[in-house]
Amino acid sequence: TLQHIFKQIFKASLELQEDDHSKALLVSRKKQPQDTIVTIRGEKVGNGEQRLIAGPCSVESFEQVDEVAKALKKEGIKFLRGGAYKPRTSPYDFQGLGEEGLKILKEIADKHDLAVISEIVTPHDIEKAVDYLDVIQIGARNMQNFELLKAAGSVDKPILLKRGLSATIQEFINAAEYIHSKGNGNIMLCERGIRTYETATRNTLDISAVPILKQETHLPVFVDVTHSTGRRDLLLPTAKAALAVGADGVMTEVHPDPAVALSDSAQQMDIPQFHEFMKNLEESGLYKKTQAASSK
Amino acid sequence: TLQHIFKQIFKASLELQEDDHSKALLVSRKKQPQDTIVTIRGEKVGNGEQRLIAGPCSVESFEQVDEVAKALKKEGIKFLRGGAYKPRTSPYDFQGLGEEGLKILKEIADKHDLAVISEIVTPHDIEKAVDYLDVIQIGARNMQNFELLKAAGSVDKPILLKRGLSATIQEFINAAEYIHSKGNGNIMLCERGIRTYETATRNTLDISAVPILKQETHLPVFVDVTHSTGRRDLLLPTAKAALAVGADGVMTEVHPDPAVALSDSAQQMDIPQFHEFMKNLEESGLYKKTQAASSK
Amino acid sequence: TLQHIFKQIFKASLELQEDDHSKALLVSRKKQPQDTIVTIRGEKVGNGEQRLIAGPCSVESFEQVDEVAKALKKEGIKFLRGGAYKPRTSPYDFQGLGEEGLKILKEIADKHDLAVISEIVTPHDIEKAVDYLDVIQIGARNMQNFELLKAAGSVDKPILLKRGLSATIQEFINAAEYIHSKGNGNIMLCERGIRTYETATRNTLDISAVPILKQETHLPVFVDVTHSTGRRDLLLPTAKAALAVGADGVMTEVHPDPAVALSDSAQQMDIPQFHEFMKNLEESGLYKKTQAASSK
Amino acid sequence: TLQHIFKQIFKASLELQEDDHSKALLVSRKKQPQDTIVTIRGEKVGNGEQRLIAGPCSVESFEQVDEVAKALKKEGIKFLRGGAYKPRTSPYDFQGLGEEGLKILKEIADKHDLAVISEIVTPHDIEKAVDYLDVIQIGARNMQNFELLKAAGSVDKPILLKRGLSATIQEFINAAEYIHSKGNGNIMLCERGIRTYETATRNTLDISAVPILKQETHLPVFVDVTHSTGRRDLLLPTAKAALAVGADGVMTEVHPDPAVALSDSAQQMDIPQFHEFMKNLEESGLYKKTQAASSK
Repeated sequence: TLQHIFKQIFKASLELQEDDHSKALLVSRKKQPQDTIVTIRGEKVGNGEQRLIAGPCSVESFEQVDEVAKALKKEGIKFLRGGAYKPRTSPYDFQGLGEEGLKILKEIADKHDLAVISEIVTPHDIEKAVDYLDVIQIGARNMQNFELLKAAGSVDKPILLKRGLSATIQEFINAAEYIHSKGNGNIMLCERGIRTYETATRNTLDISAVPILKQETHLPVFVDVTHSTGRRDLLLPTAKAALAVGADGVMTEVHPDPAVALSDSAQQMDIPQFHEFMKNLEESGLYKKTQAASSK
Repeated sequence: TLQHIFKQIFKASLELQEDDHSKALLVSRKKQPQDTIVTIRGEKVGNGEQRLIAGPCSVESFEQVDEVAKALKKEGIKFLRGGAYKPRTSPYDFQGLGEEGLKILKEIADKHDLAVISEIVTPHDIEKAVDYLDVIQIGARNMQNFELLKAAGSVDKPILLKRGLSATIQEFINAAEYIHSKGNGNIMLCERGIRTYETATRNTLDISAVPILKQETHLPVFVDVTHSTGRRDLLLPTAKAALAVGADGVMTEVHPDPAVALSDSAQQMDIPQFHEFMKNLEESGLYKKTQAASSK
Repeated sequence: TLQHIFKQIFKASLELQEDDHSKALLVSRKKQPQDTIVTIRGEKVGNGEQRLIAGPCSVESFEQVDEVAKALKKEGIKFLRGGAYKPRTSPYDFQGLGEEGLKILKEIADKHDLAVISEIVTPHDIEKAVDYLDVIQIGARNMQNFELLKAAGSVDKPILLKRGLSATIQEFINAAEYIHSKGNGNIMLCERGIRTYETATRNTLDISAVPILKQETHLPVFVDVTHSTGRRDLLLPTAKAALAVGADGVMTEVHPDPAVALSDSAQQMDIPQFHEFMKNLEESGLYKKTQAASSK
Repeated sequence: TLQHIFKQIFKASLELQEDDHSKALLVSRKKQPQDTIVTIRGEKVGNGEQRLIAGPCSVESFEQVDEVAKALKKEGIKFLRGGAYKPRTSPYDFQGLGEEGLKILKEIADKHDLAVISEIVTPHDIEKAVDYLDVIQIGARNMQNFELLKAAGSVDKPILLKRGLSATIQEFINAAEYIHSKGNGNIMLCERGIRTYETATRNTLDISAVPILKQETHLPVFVDVTHSTGRRDLLLPTAKAALAVGADGVMTEVHPDPAVALSDSAQQMDIPQFHEFMKNLEESGLYKKTQAASSK
């Protein structure tokens, strides 16, 4: 019948359109079938080995970060995170140490040969950050701060882009495209939970987003188990889920003394909890210490 | 200061209240610390071994279900699902074979020594279902159909309770309590995705719900990877995530010829895809065939 | 170009399909362009005059309901609501007086010549309810309890169907179609808020749903300002919004002594607050007392 | 009993805490009981009279904006909106005319004595914008771009702050506080719909947010009926709802030829539709033309 033919044409047209759309994007797997591998201080991300990123929510002092750095070294972890500019809901909450924080991260990085990751929140600071950081993070609240994305796309430094609080996967991919379209293809994506009606967790970890992002783009995909759950007791099971589902890595928060942390005290692990976490992760068979680490 | 003391009292009171509340529930782990193990046709669920439940969305004919049953046997799977009463958005969609479907399931169960699971949608049919089924399923749309829950609590038959489309974890636990409060403690919970703004998947699989439900209750917890994602290409990675996160089992849909299925054609695996799925699951190290199966 | 032609065909096909779909539904305005007017105890709903439905959350005693009934009469309101079967999250919360509650409502109805509305939660009770009630309500949690909808469609009694907690408008319309398809076309719809991430209100009142439902169907549409907001201080402004947006009526809760109410104490008005609410509503020019009432 | 006393203390403590929190905020009504009235080109906003803001989604040319400006004058509307910097999901969509757009707006403003409103998306442009605009808009995607908020708080120019796509009301209020805390108290809030599972509308207009924001803060509150619904057919009913619920004004989009608009073509009114919209709004009794306009 005529209607049947129409339906066939309809479907064909729809697929055609979607195809065209995806083909056009630089971050799309249709544009580049092979995985993007990002090299950071000699360590590769996205090459099939799964990585951990850990560190305190906020940089508070050299000593605090140094203690975490030592714990990371022990576990053979290369990537240290720590917030210097903190986007906080209230203007009266601790806003981070700013450039002072970046300096501390740089010192730590040099002392321990670690790669440091920190969030930048305004285009103006991107260029400055290049001198201090190994990876520039764009946070969830700024995922559609397009001027910031363009600035991040204009420097030669790997970018870790977090999914917005209620961004669709398509919007997330387009945000990455903003960066790539300006010339910087060293992008890593990070699922960090989405906002839903459920209040048992801080956000709802959208675990399915990981295989979708791996299919649709050629970029490495991380899972931030700390911000997605907001609960220390869920870090281990969700980290396992993230590794099992095919993430290129897991990001989590560690603090020498979470109870006195200037932000997010309820969800960070202390050092012994962190070593326990790593031990359990390895025993599960889902995570392998890197060569370098295990040989030490 | 006075305010500090108030805050302490406040916290103490809050915890006291929550404690009391959880203690009162029969399904709560505070009430019963050890895991509930449900025995179905001689096979245990919730004992630490992870189970699979598979089968067609709808029972369409004896031959259709029989073919799926054979595939299950080959994989050492004991639990066969299949819908006889189908809750459908439109009154003009296929509504299931009804009691005829239950009879087919019973025949299949006897022929292959499988345990059969099917959804019942009205209190009136619960008693009848007891004669045909090994497990009675309460579906997502009926999670707060309290009369149905009470009826399910009044029979001596294991219940598989699915989380509502937008139920909180607390509401889910209370729905289970409705069943238990009527005397039936053989309850299995099933996370099946929640409704969010994201349209890339049919629902958003709330993977964190699994460890929370395992902590809060003593009941076995399944993950339905088919209805949560609605995408065949996501069944394998989400099944891995479910097993890694600590679920007691995974539920998925298999149909001899999904293209002609009377419901949910886009998300069911065909038989070869199902064997491939099982092979990959085993190779991942996350799933172990049961003794019985591997010895055959 | 070819692609442009494809797009045109695509659009045409899409509209054709949607048209067909809507035409098929008995509740669709495409099927019946003129408004359905439901007559209840001689009073019309859906005829352009806007109605109020008010009453306690739960029927607790004859005296309690009688007091509310008198307040309604004073305001010229014809429709009294009151819950006899209460669907509650926990099995240990007050579950309503059941049939005893229906009897009280019937007595009140006869005494004051009011039309009484109450929720029925299981197919088995529908027939019984016909003798007691003027309108049978299907609640939000049962919007997709299809067996209940079919039972409601099989009796000759007006139905007030509430939108599910996270039902789409399309699902809501299809739920109404379940009732109509069984022969009962006297259906009134009721928007009562949807579940979102926002916690400032109990639910999020989806005010846009009202004009959409009026366009898509020929059925009267109410707004339940009590359950959508869950806040006494928002009843007046949201009632005004509902009347302004084109609803056929507003539903709200009134209780002689909300502080001791057995359910929903925080959101019900007491009698003086209710008279104040009515006074403000009339003064806003958005609501007109019915002829009958103002002449008394 | 002891537990009862605990509960009372608990409640008291809770209220104490919340009170303290709200008192601390400069935008809170607890801090300043009387309404903030913002004066823009001699016209007051927040003084009890309800205002309209209208204009094209994007500034495309002088002629385009001029045509809309004339239509606004005819209706006695003082506030013209138009986007010069457009935050778009894809980097390949039209991004606005930038500073060229601001210049066009300034010319129009001077020609017709209108107040012009446009979105600024990066801190760097805020100071420049002061010379061109009467009101600086902060868009939904930038509601938690805290550096932008701080920059907006440092200039002497009224700010229209839109609610984020999935911001809670508390986060919205805190975003306003970021502006106020830097010294600029001339802030107007704008509800523009939130992201939910419902797809019948572009967003879900959270109409209850208006009275809540009016209670919690002393700032004027607008409703953007265009972005919240995304449907031309819903502009009139939702504008009525917004005025009825107590908003200080309504924002909507008008374009001389929506079909060829460079953005949002499906949701803008053309000029005759706009005059029809205004006529209906006045006839509803919910909107009054300003003195100046009606005297012409």
